Amino acid sequence: MQIPAIASPYDAALAARLDARINDKTKPLGSLGALERLARQIGLIQGSDHPVLRQSAIVVCAGDHGVTAEGVSAYPQSVTWQMVENFLAGGAAINIFARQNECALYIVDTGVNHDFGQRDGLLDRKIAAGTANFCKAPAMTAPQCEAALQAGLQFAESLQADVLGFGEMGIGNTTAAAALMAAFTGAPVQECVGAGTGLDAQGVARKADAVTRALYLHAQASTPLQRLAALGGFEIAFMTGAMMGAAHRRKVVLIDGFIVTSALLVAAALQPAVLEYCVFSHCSDEAGHRRMLQYLGATPLMQLDLRLGEGTGAALALPLLRAAVNFLERMATFSSASVSEKHV
Amino acid sequence: MQIPAIASPYDAALAARLDARINDKTKPLGSLGALERLARQIGLIQGSDHPVLRQSAIVVCAGDHGVTAEGVSAYPQSVTWQMVENFLAGGAAINIFARQNECALYIVDTGVNHDFGQRDGLLDRKIAAGTANFCKAPAMTAPQCEAALQAGLQFAESLQADVLGFGEMGIGNTTAAAALMAAFTGAPVQECVGAGTGLDAQGVARKADAVTRALYLHAQASTPLQRLAALGGFEIAFMTGAMMGAAHRRKVVLIDGFIVTSALLVAAALQPAVLEYCVFSHCSDEAGHRRMLQYLGATPLMQLDLRLGEGTGAALALPLLRAAVNFLERMATFSSASVSEKHV
Repeated sequence: MQIPAIASPYDAALAARLDARINDKTKPLGSLGALERLARQIGLIQGSDHPVLRQSAIVVCAGDHGVTAEGVSAYPQSVTWQMVENFLAGGAAINIFARQNECALYIVDTGVNHDFGQRDGLLDRKIAAGTANFCKAPAMTAPQCEAALQAGLQFAESLQADVLGFGEMGIGNTTAAAALMAAFTGAPVQECVGAGTGLDAQGVARKADAVTRALYLHAQASTPLQRLAALGGFEIAFMTGAMMGAAHRRKVVLIDGFIVTSALLVAAALQPAVLEYCVFSHCSDEAGHRRMLQYLGATPLMQLDLRLGEGTGAALALPLLRAAVNFLERMATFSSASVSEKHV
Repeated sequence: MQIPAIASPYDAALAARLDARINDKTKPLGSLGALERLARQIGLIQGSDHPVLRQSAIVVCAGDHGVTAEGVSAYPQSVTWQMVENFLAGGAAINIFARQNECALYIVDTGVNHDFGQRDGLLDRKIAAGTANFCKAPAMTAPQCEAALQAGLQFAESLQADVLGFGEMGIGNTTAAAALMAAFTGAPVQECVGAGTGLDAQGVARKADAVTRALYLHAQASTPLQRLAALGGFEIAFMTGAMMGAAHRRKVVLIDGFIVTSALLVAAALQPAVLEYCVFSHCSDEAGHRRMLQYLGATPLMQLDLRLGEGTGAALALPLLRAAVNFLERMATFSSASVSEKHV
């Protein structure tokens, strides 16, 4: 399939102009910390020393997972479609946070095991009614995986927004994300699996066992796309494609938690420059997320012990992105405000 | 002076009702992490299982410090009044963040070494034109310190807001905060002093020396108020009073960085229950802040490497407080949304 080549947004002359603007603001040098790094990054992504954030969007990608047959989740598979209904009705956490932070919300069925029919507010990109159980077969066939990637790519390429945040819903998808993490980072399975939505120790052990068997079964999968097809999910593949599409269109890619970051592992293996477009909203409470972020060299903005998914961390981080752009655009400079500069 | 008795907001029956409401929301148990703790705390403070945040305010308290004569700051003392002018003109970081996050902003002159005259938007609570150099005399006389505390107390008691955030401006005030930290926590001076607005190693050494001499000179100061008078500042004393006033009126007390937290050290020594009203917005990049927070048993919401003061961290945390109240009030419940509950 066609994967767009993603170029680094880095431009030394622009970076110098951004730094000069940031450092002329009425504050001690560097004293806005992470917000200064954000302002610089958003400027580079937009190719402008006057970056703006006009529109933000979060896409919540839902899909089901055959591996739930292995008893790897604390909730039944039907919760995936029930939560999609909750998103459509406006009652989930992501609805509340997206509304509060003035962010458009897109709900996509990438492969839920349920027939929603035609529904207002639901994008139908269903590839199949859930993946296969990856303990027994590849989660997706190669054409299914490519179709999901392509759907995500097209979605992001056509979106009017400066920031695209990612969220997901899929019972069983922390198991898929853990398997991808093990395959892409080489971390031991025990460090990749966690409690997900609330497994007890026995459940976590079943999950580790399922991931271990899957890695053995699919040991021949060696390219990023083969691994994604074998171990991923429809919503994960859709997000991988959408991340590349958003970066290709020079949008800010706002990363949420463990499952979203697993999609980025795939995207970064395909096109490493995608990482330069990513803002990492938070480090989640799911066991493997910290190590996943470390592997990517990522510094998250927040750490709130979230482990809900849906893009909730991404939505909560939006005011920080706006603050970064706002201070750069609106703060006075030392000369305009007649404030004395440092004297030692 | 009269310090109001501050009672704990804890109420076991209300806490149980809040927990029940939080746990019935359509999300895995505990999966909103810090936001769940915040929702519970705000509910307890307001004495309601339906807490609301209608109005937020940040007060930026400005004051000058005689200890600047010891060469403890990277900026000249005149920057204090120049930055107050910047606040009044709307060009400082706190103006931008308060506006973005829809928060009222109060600027108070508690003791700036400058004659502002009568000015719109500036509350005149000036005790004196800067404190004395605490390397040679107590920073404040006992009556001055009480007057500043009382002014803060009255300010907060009369304020119409559900959340009162704190910020400050005062060249030299990281030195005062470090001295208070050493006196109240017993931490070694080297762990209390940091680079402030951008001191080099020599400057930090001068600062440590000034704090060490002050602690020796004022070793007899043993009560919280004596220590505050000897080592604090007008803006710090005002904040200490305002924190107690806000807690007394059952408002959320939103703590910013190193200097604001030093004012809380005093308030907590006077009335320990004040801590239960405090939300800690961030851990700053100033060296001693992390240890100060640990001493108070505080978990900050964010860590963004900020070291600007002005209440910027408090303003940036406001959307998280709103998110906590919003999820509690607006999210669907498992029964209302017909979502299946955990099955293992």
